[in-house]
Amino acid sequence: MTDINTQEIQRLYEKLNKEAEDGGYHLNPDVEFTKQLVESLIINQQRYGYPACPCRLASGKKEEDLDIICPCDYRDADILEYGACYCGLYVSEKVLKGERKLQSIPERRPPKEKRSESVTQKIQTGLPYPVYRCKVCGYLCARESPPEVCPICKAKKERFERFM
Amino acid sequence: MTDINTQEIQRLYEKLNKEAEDGGYHLNPDVEFTKQLVESLIINQQRYGYPACPCRLASGKKEEDLDIICPCDYRDADILEYGACYCGLYVSEKVLKGERKLQSIPERRPPKEKRSESVTQKIQTGLPYPVYRCKVCGYLCARESPPEVCPICKAKKERFERFM
Amino acid sequence: MTDINTQEIQRLYEKLNKEAEDGGYHLNPDVEFTKQLVESLIINQQRYGYPACPCRLASGKKEEDLDIICPCDYRDADILEYGACYCGLYVSEKVLKGERKLQSIPERRPPKEKRSESVTQKIQTGLPYPVYRCKVCGYLCARESPPEVCPICKAKKERFERFM
Repeated sequence: MTDINTQEIQRLYEKLNKEAEDGGYHLNPDVEFTKQLVESLIINQQRYGYPACPCRLASGKKEEDLDIICPCDYRDADILEYGACYCGLYVSEKVLKGERKLQSIPERRPPKEKRSESVTQKIQTGLPYPVYRCKVCGYLCARESPPEVCPICKAKKERFERFM
Repeated sequence: MTDINTQEIQRLYEKLNKEAEDGGYHLNPDVEFTKQLVESLIINQQRYGYPACPCRLASGKKEEDLDIICPCDYRDADILEYGACYCGLYVSEKVLKGERKLQSIPERRPPKEKRSESVTQKIQTGLPYPVYRCKVCGYLCARESPPEVCPICKAKKERFERFM
Repeated sequence: MTDINTQEIQRLYEKLNKEAEDGGYHLNPDVEFTKQLVESLIINQQRYGYPACPCRLASGKKEEDLDIICPCDYRDADILEYGACYCGLYVSEKVLKGERKLQSIPERRPPKEKRSESVTQKIQTGLPYPVYRCKVCGYLCARESPPEVCPICKAKKERFERFM
């Protein structure tokens, strides 16, 4: 690894860490491990032109890989269920604090033929995702379940209610 | 007060202050007073397992106290009407700048038997809260009235419009 | 320019820069030029009591100028179409990186008689703006098109989908 690479990795690591903390997420506290993932993201950025998930096989066609550009569409559901995203780059607060151990995480990404299911179709039978509301600040988001922490006021998951 | 406590208070004070400013809120500029409240939050965290409001009597059952975990569900309405939350921990920009004096703040929390009124019931007769939209960045939130400052783009309250 | 003014400009410049970066926006990287705009904002703040757009003629009546208080209601649409807001204070990522040149930007603000068109009227025939959802974190916003970057999780525009 050249000096420039080390600097680049450090820079991206710090940027991702700040963005994560500001938004109520956490990078894996194992810095050595995390920096390896960050390096893979830089390599994928150079190879494909976008930072595809380091732990999945990218097709190289951006429109087919949109859902696995890091952070992937499956991150939040995996953090909720397993305490970490598929790669282990992002972890839950419990894992961060050592109150929960990481286990292996099954692949949540649907097979290719099911991925294209249009949100527009789902809308015809109601909203494609439930909308949750932070009772503290009124923040709204549409997800399978509320975020671990409100990205606006940092209230915890249990302060969210179903809104629509 | 031990040295460790002072450090702990300072740490939580700085964390809450950063989170407040990032989200368009403000801690009370009377640092001495504010740190006393922060200390009470730490004590409540140790006693109950969650940082119940320092100025209210917690039941000790988390599910009954959710609405008064700090920041409480009533903070934003009190800041809007009285310039500060019930405790005086969070204040409006006018109070911060000394353009408005603090007065005593009546208890907004409903009596226990009215607290459980289900949002789901309210939904059946339309949305439980109006949705406001920041005209500058499109941020949406569901609250009795818009926030003092848009947490995303920092546009002021008067730049919000009723959206739903 | 007095010393105090230079300090004031520097302070506001830094504040706006931090707020922009935190929310996925960027100030014009030509710092000299940008600070002139920041100075004009301070002058307008003193003259009118609010930071009206430096490149437009304010009426001096706040309720008539709400849409051109900086950041103006037209910023995001101009950044999307032209790579910068009308003044050139805020620029797109491409412009920031030198991958796109700035051109002159036509005035998007409607003539006065069309400005007052009530959002309430638009609501009667459906929502006044489409609602977009970040597929990564579930952030919702109501705008003509998605933001360049999700202000919560920093996912890019192409990760947004139409939600309502």
